[in-house]
Amino acid sequence: MKQIEIIKDVLDANRVVAEENRKLLKEAGVFAINLMGSPGSGKTTVLERTLEHIAGKMWVGIIQGDITTSLDSERLQRFNVPIVQINTEPFGGDCHLGANLVQKALHSFDLNQIQLLVIENVGNLVCPAEFDIGENLKAVVFSVTEGEEKPLKYPLMFRECGLVLISKLDLLQYLDVKVEKMVENIRKINSQSKIIPLSAKTGEGMEDWVAFLKQKCK
Amino acid sequence: MKQIEIIKDVLDANRVVAEENRKLLKEAGVFAINLMGSPGSGKTTVLERTLEHIAGKMWVGIIQGDITTSLDSERLQRFNVPIVQINTEPFGGDCHLGANLVQKALHSFDLNQIQLLVIENVGNLVCPAEFDIGENLKAVVFSVTEGEEKPLKYPLMFRECGLVLISKLDLLQYLDVKVEKMVENIRKINSQSKIIPLSAKTGEGMEDWVAFLKQKCK
Repeated sequence: MKQIEIIKDVLDANRVVAEENRKLLKEAGVFAINLMGSPGSGKTTVLERTLEHIAGKMWVGIIQGDITTSLDSERLQRFNVPIVQINTEPFGGDCHLGANLVQKALHSFDLNQIQLLVIENVGNLVCPAEFDIGENLKAVVFSVTEGEEKPLKYPLMFRECGLVLISKLDLLQYLDVKVEKMVENIRKINSQSKIIPLSAKTGEGMEDWVAFLKQKCK
Repeated sequence: MKQIEIIKDVLDANRVVAEENRKLLKEAGVFAINLMGSPGSGKTTVLERTLEHIAGKMWVGIIQGDITTSLDSERLQRFNVPIVQINTEPFGGDCHLGANLVQKALHSFDLNQIQLLVIENVGNLVCPAEFDIGENLKAVVFSVTEGEEKPLKYPLMFRECGLVLISKLDLLQYLDVKVEKMVENIRKINSQSKIIPLSAKTGEGMEDWVAFLKQKCK
């Protein structure tokens, strides 16, 4: 009982800071996406391909959340957009980003120079969904290699996310998996979320995703 | 600071119960594996293929950990081995199995009728690695679709695990991923762990894995 009370306190404290972040972002006219998903679902690869489309055309900023490395930030450096790396290891090796760490990162940007902020969370289909970080949109990258039933097994993530990017479409032909079934399972949890199937490898679906981003940052 | 102290208390309390579990298993001569990995890494599929090899030849028991469904247990029912489902949802939707839930499950088995107990943990490459549940061996299923660098990004899991099953070898030919590089990255974190590459789809490597299990349960 004690433990549950404390967890509530932590979540409440997080929510207060998340609201501050949201206000900060709103004042600067920034649209912020909290990009989540399992390890290896393709978050960074989608982001690389996205930056190929929009870097230089939109003002983009990136926050990279990771437990201990800056490998993903290094992959994105060639795009010459502002990137702030958050490592959770000095803070207990947290399995998710909290609003306080994101707030510190926000202060490292000139937010008036940013239209779109993508916050890549720690790879984890469970815990990040519990923590509001002040984003405008929660999105999950869900790869076809993970199997059709994951929305049912990890419902909080799919309930919280307004956008699902079904990734790695190029591998579909080698798997016993159907996108229709993935969509059907997402719909059992969330009837409203936008769903965009894509492949960062072949480029299929990337135009829909980029159009969605442009529309959000008008 | 308060929060960190409390987390220590939780981990200490967990460790005490884990030791009780370990004693219980030892007295009954059970070898217990804590099977972890990302969502969709192939834990249940590996387990299905494993049971095809050993069900009826060894006394096997399964504990299935999941947040909210019993989908994985249902997939294993055809093997007619004792299965106990643990759902963490009534306990806060925990992102990992704790020793206390495992202890409750242990009391549902006739442990004297079991040689090998496989405990499939919640799909998560982060949190389950922190919790001793009284197992004899921690193992991680790490699929080739997750990418080569994951041991560096999720070091605690690979440090804790005495066994790594590199899964989905059948998909390797469609990916820009090398098993040698995965092994090299595992070795940067853990020089001792046993590594078995396999494909539950083609059966490649399954004999090595089954031989390993038989040897452990002699």
